[in-house]
Amino acid sequence: MNLIENKLIQKLTSQYKRSPSQVNSLLESDAELIQLLSGEILAITIDSIVEEVHTGLYDDPYLIGWMTVMVSLSDLSAVGASPLGLVISQNVPDGFSENSLNQLQRGIQDACETSGTFILGGDTNFAEKLQTSSAAVGMIPKGRVISRKGIQTGDLLFVSGKMGLGGAFAFEKLFMGGNSDIIYQPKARLKEGQIIKEFGSACIDTSDAFFPALCNLIELNEVGFQIKTNLDDWIYPMALALGEKTDIPSWFFLAGPHGEFELLFTVPKENKESFLKAAKAINWNPIQIGKATEENKVWIHSNNELIEILPFTISNLYTACDSNPKQYFESLQKLQRKWHL
Amino acid sequence: MNLIENKLIQKLTSQYKRSPSQVNSLLESDAELIQLLSGEILAITIDSIVEEVHTGLYDDPYLIGWMTVMVSLSDLSAVGASPLGLVISQNVPDGFSENSLNQLQRGIQDACETSGTFILGGDTNFAEKLQTSSAAVGMIPKGRVISRKGIQTGDLLFVSGKMGLGGAFAFEKLFMGGNSDIIYQPKARLKEGQIIKEFGSACIDTSDAFFPALCNLIELNEVGFQIKTNLDDWIYPMALALGEKTDIPSWFFLAGPHGEFELLFTVPKENKESFLKAAKAINWNPIQIGKATEENKVWIHSNNELIEILPFTISNLYTACDSNPKQYFESLQKLQRKWHL
Repeated sequence: MNLIENKLIQKLTSQYKRSPSQVNSLLESDAELIQLLSGEILAITIDSIVEEVHTGLYDDPYLIGWMTVMVSLSDLSAVGASPLGLVISQNVPDGFSENSLNQLQRGIQDACETSGTFILGGDTNFAEKLQTSSAAVGMIPKGRVISRKGIQTGDLLFVSGKMGLGGAFAFEKLFMGGNSDIIYQPKARLKEGQIIKEFGSACIDTSDAFFPALCNLIELNEVGFQIKTNLDDWIYPMALALGEKTDIPSWFFLAGPHGEFELLFTVPKENKESFLKAAKAINWNPIQIGKATEENKVWIHSNNELIEILPFTISNLYTACDSNPKQYFESLQKLQRKWHL
Repeated sequence: MNLIENKLIQKLTSQYKRSPSQVNSLLESDAELIQLLSGEILAITIDSIVEEVHTGLYDDPYLIGWMTVMVSLSDLSAVGASPLGLVISQNVPDGFSENSLNQLQRGIQDACETSGTFILGGDTNFAEKLQTSSAAVGMIPKGRVISRKGIQTGDLLFVSGKMGLGGAFAFEKLFMGGNSDIIYQPKARLKEGQIIKEFGSACIDTSDAFFPALCNLIELNEVGFQIKTNLDDWIYPMALALGEKTDIPSWFFLAGPHGEFELLFTVPKENKESFLKAAKAINWNPIQIGKATEENKVWIHSNNELIEILPFTISNLYTACDSNPKQYFESLQKLQRKWHL
């Protein structure tokens, strides 16, 4: 199985030649890694906020500003880079109010300040709809490098924090009129990423949510996963509560396409102890949820049972439904009737 | 006088804190300059193709791809950086044909190949209108740095090539139905920029055309310019021909907002000889058009006369006309009746 999105990217980029200085192959890393003459590695990434505004998922200018910065910083965190800063492109509609413009800038600045980094410069245009892009650049010192690839059978699977907030926020916003207690304002896991780089074998952010991230790891590493930790123990409490209130199985919130910008990563068994020690030193509690298996299947622990699920079916479903949220929701329900997760 | 656009940028970014590692101040450089620990300087820039597609100025996907790359590389050229590569964001409409998508990618790849650089990665989204952004990153070795600031009275004013192609292309495309001989496919002046960095005192690209670029130099350096070289000697031959055919004064093509991505720069008198020698070594013929003056005015040589013009009036005119091309053209004609350039 493959992610449909990855096939599209492979096709789109098939005419491009790759730089001999680039350390990572296509789709192999959240940020692009360039070997510098000094021995350090430069990490760079670009990301845009387009569809989230178009669908109405993001309508708060402050959140759009915040996310403009975080989407790119999160890619840097997944490769353990220290950010040098960002350049941003803002395409603002003609009728955008001065107050909204101010809120947008405040979101941008607050996200930078929280992450200890800076806007270096930018570009402003008028457009029909608000649309922003950011490119973040960072440095990785000489030494270890981490990407999405490098998992060995038996490696332990971790998440940097509880999952499902991005999905719960999207569900609540698009289907319930946006009146819940869910506070969505993710922070790039920059410090955590630097620890993962030292001890881990592979890392990816959950910008597209848990299952799409997991599929990327499976596709690149040709492994499977046994997820033995009960779902309830690693799903975000507010997502669990929303699921209970609305009678929606909580795994829907892991399905994407909107994620929570945590990190999903693997650690070789022999590094576990030193990894957890380093995590503890920054007051971080990563959650071990399972392990990589040779068998190319995914088993998940729910209601005290291990159930085989098809993560590619889940992850490709939104695209298969022509990005139509309603149709997508119905398709997820069909899967649930089959799997009883 | 000030450029209206610069005032808007100053307002927009007033909430941002600046990085202590950033070498340049706001608006002082075409690309942002970051001091690295190794002693080298990292140059980074972002630019979007939005309004050019919206107005119909760019409707050829190949050109849009080409320009997506060149707009950012041109910023690197103005600071004399060697490109490490680009990351790009493509926002593609639903109904975009496969052939158009292919043409877009070919334009991107050809522009990279011509410039000896690479696409490192990217991001793809669906959007209502085609819209692209690129961020380019490059390195400047230890040693000299050049920005838009640093001009002394008496410094010689140069252009890297003939001017007016961007304006002529826009005029022809928007007012004459796009059926002319004008071939618009600018190349970033990367090698030339590295020579300018060694011998020049300030440099800016003419992405917004000649007069807006000149205004940026005036605003930052508090100088004026005497442009003694006759206009006909430094305006692009096809632009001159179009002007004659349509009875439009050729200086209209210097007025912006669409430029030709040449470099406008100054060289101290004492560096002139060594600068020209280095230029000759790469078969490049920069054109000396005037010099910087203490008096904060701009004089231009046309029809064997030196005429005082108001470059800020010209450069702010498009914004003052609410970006309406027709109204803008009429306003330029009013200025011509006054100045007889």
